[in-house]
Amino acid sequence: MLNVAETTGRSLFITTADLEDLAQGAAFLGTGGGGDPYIGRLMAKHAIEEYGAPEIIEASELDDDATVLPAAMLGAPTVLVEKAASGEDIDYSIKRLAQLIGKQADAIMPIEIGGINSVIPVVAAARLGLPLVNCDGMGRAFPELQMVTFNVFGVPATPAVIVDERLETVIVETNDGKRAEDLIRAAAIRMGLSVMISCYPMNGRQVKQYAVKGTLTLALGVGRALSQGRKEGEPIEALLEYLRSTEYYNHCKVLFDGKITDLRRETTGGFSMGHCELAALDGSERRMTVLFQNENLVARVGGKTVAVVPDLICIVDRETGRPVTVEALKYGQRVKVIGTSAAPIMRRPESLAVFGPQAFGLEEEFIPIEEFGERGRI
Amino acid sequence: MLNVAETTGRSLFITTADLEDLAQGAAFLGTGGGGDPYIGRLMAKHAIEEYGAPEIIEASELDDDATVLPAAMLGAPTVLVEKAASGEDIDYSIKRLAQLIGKQADAIMPIEIGGINSVIPVVAAARLGLPLVNCDGMGRAFPELQMVTFNVFGVPATPAVIVDERLETVIVETNDGKRAEDLIRAAAIRMGLSVMISCYPMNGRQVKQYAVKGTLTLALGVGRALSQGRKEGEPIEALLEYLRSTEYYNHCKVLFDGKITDLRRETTGGFSMGHCELAALDGSERRMTVLFQNENLVARVGGKTVAVVPDLICIVDRETGRPVTVEALKYGQRVKVIGTSAAPIMRRPESLAVFGPQAFGLEEEFIPIEEFGERGRI
Repeated sequence: MLNVAETTGRSLFITTADLEDLAQGAAFLGTGGGGDPYIGRLMAKHAIEEYGAPEIIEASELDDDATVLPAAMLGAPTVLVEKAASGEDIDYSIKRLAQLIGKQADAIMPIEIGGINSVIPVVAAARLGLPLVNCDGMGRAFPELQMVTFNVFGVPATPAVIVDERLETVIVETNDGKRAEDLIRAAAIRMGLSVMISCYPMNGRQVKQYAVKGTLTLALGVGRALSQGRKEGEPIEALLEYLRSTEYYNHCKVLFDGKITDLRRETTGGFSMGHCELAALDGSERRMTVLFQNENLVARVGGKTVAVVPDLICIVDRETGRPVTVEALKYGQRVKVIGTSAAPIMRRPESLAVFGPQAFGLEEEFIPIEEFGERGRI
Repeated sequence: MLNVAETTGRSLFITTADLEDLAQGAAFLGTGGGGDPYIGRLMAKHAIEEYGAPEIIEASELDDDATVLPAAMLGAPTVLVEKAASGEDIDYSIKRLAQLIGKQADAIMPIEIGGINSVIPVVAAARLGLPLVNCDGMGRAFPELQMVTFNVFGVPATPAVIVDERLETVIVETNDGKRAEDLIRAAAIRMGLSVMISCYPMNGRQVKQYAVKGTLTLALGVGRALSQGRKEGEPIEALLEYLRSTEYYNHCKVLFDGKITDLRRETTGGFSMGHCELAALDGSERRMTVLFQNENLVARVGGKTVAVVPDLICIVDRETGRPVTVEALKYGQRVKVIGTSAAPIMRRPESLAVFGPQAFGLEEEFIPIEEFGERGRI
């Protein structure tokens, strides 16, 4: 799906023309969370206009000893809208991390392709003149920093550099990924819940081994399918067709077609926690419940699970296919709930221990979405 | 007052025999706060027994470009008692700070001579085989990190390295002292409120210019005077006589002799906030109120101020002269309230802006203790 970006010889660049599709695809892969990429998209646009389009490279092109640094935003996206980031804070988090580990950054990578963190690395790569690696650590969005493949396979999350808009900096150093999340979250809250972060410094070998590959172009592809499909009047069909053609999201289906009849949402410990209930539009008595912690975690119909984390549960507008974040859910809204498989690396036992259902306090075991039939598990 | 430590040739060492007096003097200079030095004293004893007694040097002996690193504990002293510190965490905070600034530490210094932070630097100096500088940043105790002379005169508080008992580390970098306090406090709370910290890295010239000098031996002198005085049956007289002989605490008096009739104390944002009221023991109707935030801030008799921060207000047992911390205050306790002048550098306008009455939300202006008469200001 490289046709969505501009190719020059063998090099692939991400241009301002790609940003809307990238953001929309990232919103879908955000599975309700990850933050609205709107502000990030504007920042990426300005950065590309000023510094030029960053080159996209594949993980396989990295030297084993290349230094790859992730760029991300952490906090409440609503706060980001108010404060905006200068861009300087994004650079600074990368530069300070490079300095701390005594290396020069060779490439930037996204750590979370869902939501705003799909475009923050575009800003970083453009500003720093570095290539952007086509991969991330989950192929979706997750609420906590330890919930990435890199942590699953023992890559330390730290040193982690957290920078606010005044370039005030907090650095966390610990070998425990969950502990890093705790300490970083505490700092982010005190720094006003809109900070830039660079963490999980890696070499090329680690990226090649543990990243979820190709997810930047997958996000572009999702957005492109939705845009194209909308022009042709069948956005959701186009989306499903595209997803079926991918390596990770190929098991996909419309889990429910309904309207929102109940919504409970509260902000606890910096997270948007709650659930929504949907009634079927086909006149049947079927009801769906979706539980979320920033991201949608589990979808149940009549109390029976039909999809569960780390598989992706995405709520989209039933006409336009536009992804609806947890923040944007509204009573009466007519939506389709789409479920897709996660990347295979995300479904391994060691991965499920870190971001499977039980890591979110759910009682159920993980069952792959393709193993659920119409009446529950096949 | 160097007679309280063991002299070898021209060198002065702090030995295990000094620790009880040092801790008692430090408790007095803690003015109700600073933490009970008991655990710190045990740690210092073990460190001296294992690594040898650290040499005490004067600030004036420092080369201008010497690297001097403060060692301190931050948090709730009651938690420290439960968790204890390994000593390794103290070393590590110093070593990591040295590494961050790309220097070798030449000497250790106390940043706060009141309370437990009088003895933590003894542990650090013994373990690292470095001399300990006879000075600190206040000549007393204060609740917040920006409340030191170094910050008053523009020495950055950071990089600040905070280390917990698992050697997990948070580093804060900002040029704003109050902001450093906020970020460090947030980390310390998340780390369990018992952390070791090294911050305000300085060169010898800065220490010579801005430190409150001689305070380690002053704390030893206070403790020694109380111990000696107790043997002679007049601890408080002996204490006052010693204080009068000093350069900083020479304006001193018993502000009140009474018993505690009311006590309000609550823990808010990591601080012990409140006040106590005392009734005179001389049969008069005189009442004193002492307000505190960890440390005693202001003493008023019949509503009129008789001593106010940064001058020192210390509550001691009226018989033994033992300093009573805010935590240890009890209803019915018979105590004397002693006020002393602070070091001149602490009373300058720029200092008062950082830790004068208004920095604590008190409405009154600072008036030096020697300007108050029996019936209020002279």
